[in-house]
Amino acid sequence: MATITKKELIDHIADATKQKRVVVKDIVQTFLESIIVELGKGNRLEFREFGVFEVRQRRSRMAQNPKTLEPVRVPPKRTVKFKIGRLMKETLSSDDSNPENVDIGDH
Amino acid sequence: MATITKKELIDHIADATKQKRVVVKDIVQTFLESIIVELGKGNRLEFREFGVFEVRQRRSRMAQNPKTLEPVRVPPKRTVKFKIGRLMKETLSSDDSNPENVDIGDH
Repeated sequence: MATITKKELIDHIADATKQKRVVVKDIVQTFLESIIVELGKGNRLEFREFGVFEVRQRRSRMAQNPKTLEPVRVPPKRTVKFKIGRLMKETLSSDDSNPENVDIGDH
Repeated sequence: MATITKKELIDHIADATKQKRVVVKDIVQTFLESIIVELGKGNRLEFREFGVFEVRQRRSRMAQNPKTLEPVRVPPKRTVKFKIGRLMKETLSSDDSNPENVDIGDH
C-alpha cells in the first residue's frame, strides 16, 4: 500500500498517452479545478464507470461542548459525497482482477 | 442544480486549455482509469487541495433475510472513501465564493 500523488499520476499519464508532461499537468489541474467549481455551484458530476460526486447539505444541529457541557449549535455544512461507479466497484471486488486492464471507454 | 457529464467537462477543458478535444479526452480517461487501477492495488491517492481517495475494507457481518428472517452472512466488501481537500471544503463553505477563481496550483 502506497500513497500516489498527483505528480506521480501525471508522470504516468504522460508516459501512457505520449503527451508532453506540461500539457498533461495543465489538463489534469483544469479537470480537478472544474470539478470543484461545479460542486461549488451545487452541481453533481457523473463520470460513467468511475463514480459520482455530489454536494450534501448537513443540517445545523445541537451538540455539547465536551469541557463545559454547554449546548452549542453546530452550523450547517456542505460536504461532498463520492459514490463509486460500476467499473471501480468491480475492480475492487474481484479477487483475481488484473488492474492493468481497466478500460473506462474509448479514448 | 444540474448533472455535469464527463463529455461536458472535456469540452470545457479543451476550451480552457486550448488543447485538442481528442488529447483532453485521452488524458482524462487515462487519469480516471489510473485512479481505478491504483485503488484496485489498495493504494491511496492524494490530490492536494482536491481530496483523497482510499480503499476501505468492510468486514463481513451477519444480517437477516427480510422475508424468511434467516440469518445470512454478508461477505466482506471493499469500497472507496473520498475525503474532501482544503480548497474544495473552502469553496463549499464560503457563501460569497466566486467559484470561477478556483486555483489548485501552478499549471
